[in-house]
Amino acid sequence: MQIKADPLCADAFAPYGDVLDAEGTPDRIINQGMCGRHHDRARLSFEDGRAGVSIFNAIPRSLPYVCDLLERHPLGSQCFVPMSSHPFLVIVARDDHNRPGAVRAFITNGAQAINFHQGVWHGVLTPLHGPGLFAVIDRIGEGSNLEEVMLDAPVTVIA
Amino acid sequence: MQIKADPLCADAFAPYGDVLDAEGTPDRIINQGMCGRHHDRARLSFEDGRAGVSIFNAIPRSLPYVCDLLERHPLGSQCFVPMSSHPFLVIVARDDHNRPGAVRAFITNGAQAINFHQGVWHGVLTPLHGPGLFAVIDRIGEGSNLEEVMLDAPVTVIA
Repeated sequence: MQIKADPLCADAFAPYGDVLDAEGTPDRIINQGMCGRHHDRARLSFEDGRAGVSIFNAIPRSLPYVCDLLERHPLGSQCFVPMSSHPFLVIVARDDHNRPGAVRAFITNGAQAINFHQGVWHGVLTPLHGPGLFAVIDRIGEGSNLEEVMLDAPVTVIA
Repeated sequence: MQIKADPLCADAFAPYGDVLDAEGTPDRIINQGMCGRHHDRARLSFEDGRAGVSIFNAIPRSLPYVCDLLERHPLGSQCFVPMSSHPFLVIVARDDHNRPGAVRAFITNGAQAINFHQGVWHGVLTPLHGPGLFAVIDRIGEGSNLEEVMLDAPVTVIA
C-alpha cells in the first residue's frame, strides 16, 4: 500500500501525540522581553520510571520510504526534538486490537518537535537529511518498554 | 570585566551541568542498525514538580555580549536543546554565598544540547543565530523556581 506524507499539524496529529513549535502567541514573555515561552506543550508519561534525555543519531532516509516495522512503548511517552532545521518523516498508526491499524505519515516543517503519547504505534526515527541528530525525552526504567511488530503488508510512504 | 567564550566541552562544563551530544560510541544501536542511542545523558531534577517540555523562541544576540543578569532555578534542572545546527552562547557562574561568583562563557559547536544542574547560576538563553528556537526540559510545578540577580559589574563576553 502507498500513502502520502502530509504536512504535520497539531490537529491531525492529536490522536497520536503532540506537535511542539513556536506558532501562535507565547504563553509567557521572559528574559526581559527577549524570549517567548510556549509552555509545557507535551503530555509526558514515565510509568514506573523517570524522565531522561538521550541523543539519537540516525541515518537519513529518503522518499519513497518503505515502512515494514512499527513499534510502541507501553510504559511511556517519547518526545523527539530535531537538533537541525530539517524536516523529518513521522509515521504513526491507530491501534487495532493490539496490532497497528491504519497507518498515517507526516512531514515536519523543520521547526517542529513531536511527542508520541504512551502506547502509540509509530515508525522508527526517520530523518530525511543529515545529520539525523535528535534529543529524545523518554522513560528511563526497568522492565520491557518496547513492542515491535512487522507489518503484514509494508507501507510505502511517498511525498 | 571581559571574558572569552571557550568552546564547550563536557569536562569544563561539568561543574555546571551536562553536555549532550553524539560524540563517542553510542551506548546502544537500535532500529535495525540505523540509529545510535547516547543514553540518558542529563542529570535531571524536578523537585516538588514534574518534567515538562516547552519551546523557547529567543531573539539572537551577537558578540561582544554584555551580561548583567544571572539567574538560577532552586527547584530543578533546565535542559536546552537547540532546534537548529547553529552554535549558541552559554554563560554560567559558580555560587559564592548565594550570589554569582566567577563567571565563565562557552560557545557550543552546533551539535550540542546542555543541561544546567539544579541551582546553577546561568545567563538567559542567548542564541547567536536565528531562529533562536529551543526545546527546554524543565520543572513544571507550583512555587517560585526563579532567582534573578543583577551583577554589580557587568561581564562582557568576547569571541
